[in-house]
Amino acid sequence: MKRTAFFISDGTGITAETLGQSLLAQFETITFNKLTRPYIDSVEKARAMVQQIDRAAEVDGVRPIIFDTIVNQEIRDVLATSNGFMIDIFSTFLSPLEQELTSHSSYSVGKSHSIGHNSNYMERIEAVNFALDNDDGARTHYYDKADLILVGVSRCGKTPTCLYMAMQYGIRAANYPLTEEDMERLQLPSALKKYKDKLFGLTIDPDRLTAIRNERKPNSRYASYAQCEFEVREVENLFRRENITYINSTHFSVEEISAKILVEKGVERRLK
Amino acid sequence: MKRTAFFISDGTGITAETLGQSLLAQFETITFNKLTRPYIDSVEKARAMVQQIDRAAEVDGVRPIIFDTIVNQEIRDVLATSNGFMIDIFSTFLSPLEQELTSHSSYSVGKSHSIGHNSNYMERIEAVNFALDNDDGARTHYYDKADLILVGVSRCGKTPTCLYMAMQYGIRAANYPLTEEDMERLQLPSALKKYKDKLFGLTIDPDRLTAIRNERKPNSRYASYAQCEFEVREVENLFRRENITYINSTHFSVEEISAKILVEKGVERRLK
Repeated sequence: MKRTAFFISDGTGITAETLGQSLLAQFETITFNKLTRPYIDSVEKARAMVQQIDRAAEVDGVRPIIFDTIVNQEIRDVLATSNGFMIDIFSTFLSPLEQELTSHSSYSVGKSHSIGHNSNYMERIEAVNFALDNDDGARTHYYDKADLILVGVSRCGKTPTCLYMAMQYGIRAANYPLTEEDMERLQLPSALKKYKDKLFGLTIDPDRLTAIRNERKPNSRYASYAQCEFEVREVENLFRRENITYINSTHFSVEEISAKILVEKGVERRLK
Repeated sequence: MKRTAFFISDGTGITAETLGQSLLAQFETITFNKLTRPYIDSVEKARAMVQQIDRAAEVDGVRPIIFDTIVNQEIRDVLATSNGFMIDIFSTFLSPLEQELTSHSSYSVGKSHSIGHNSNYMERIEAVNFALDNDDGARTHYYDKADLILVGVSRCGKTPTCLYMAMQYGIRAANYPLTEEDMERLQLPSALKKYKDKLFGLTIDPDRLTAIRNERKPNSRYASYAQCEFEVREVENLFRRENITYINSTHFSVEEISAKILVEKGVERRLK
């Protein structure tokens, strides 16, 4: 059975979407058609939403699930006329929080909750620039400014992980690809030795690595299973020899890898 | 008054953190010290958390707010012994959802909710690679494969926005910097003309642009207010002349800019 789920917000929809996704993930036997609808910030847009919801109810033969974080009461009232099962996230939690904090929320006084520009902006852009400038061993003379340096074979997931940590947490993460040369020398490149406490290793299953490398350079030696298997094995040996903590990225999402690295290294996020 | 808030999870903590952040943002008069604690997945770790929570309660002189998404009942029971005000996100919503969906959740049967590796992984990595390979006008012959092409002056926020859209939504976004030459020619570069329907403009306040460029090239003509003001004015004229939808990034977060672009262009996310 297919069922439609809407994540509806007067802002970006990120909160409704994140919470909705993880709640729906608990129902493994049901297939959801998930639709995010941000910036529903007027009665007119809400009326158009009601039509969409009711249409989905008709097509599916069952009412859609609605996760919403809309501040304006009038807009919520319009949505409530739809044939959907509403999970009103803010209403549920803000009332107990107001009691506990003995304070009125912007929500209950009808103010919007835009995050907008804040002090985090520059910090985050700086972190993204740091990740880009220090990607793939491009330069190593700013490693003193790095919070972390990811190491691993080419295409094991270092770049997306560094970018995610920069974007989400404001962490300055460089990354350095370990090459065959480094493996044959049986030691860390000298640029990294000084910063051993900042190093974190990523590894990956050879078949996955072969698949990823083949996307880039089909049928090359670089992408062959034998080469991938060799590199991964040697790098894991190097990690163990040098006592570098590492994780295998194969079965984790970028979010999971990033969260695990921060816990392991005890690095606190810079964005608040 | 300062008050501590914990976002506690047996997974990445992203759901607890996202929801907690947006709920706390509704209380503008209170300063929160926010701490995310992912991978609290054993009774031992939960006991250590209880100590941290109780210590914060003592220091603050008021009990901390706890947002949690922990699946295991035993671990939640340990946390509940702390001197914190618990907002148990899953417990609150899963019971009504189970009723509506007439289905048991993994939560209620005690299974963990790891997202893990899924079909999204390659899609996302591809999108990040696309953003990196097609960053800053580096190449233009893959624009047929782009979902979107962001245009604007140098350092107006194109790269972080493209990377965010890639990471979060799997959108393939290229970006192209408009230079003085393009402005003086009073027209779009020929590489872009063919793809006018994919273009979206970013603009920025000249003082913010000056500040950002000064970080990169201090005291250069490039970073001068006069130059920034000129470029922004000319690019906005170009956008209007060519009928390119654009937004001013100055007062929005990367999340907000990205969500607005998707709505404006009617592009659906590729990650589900």
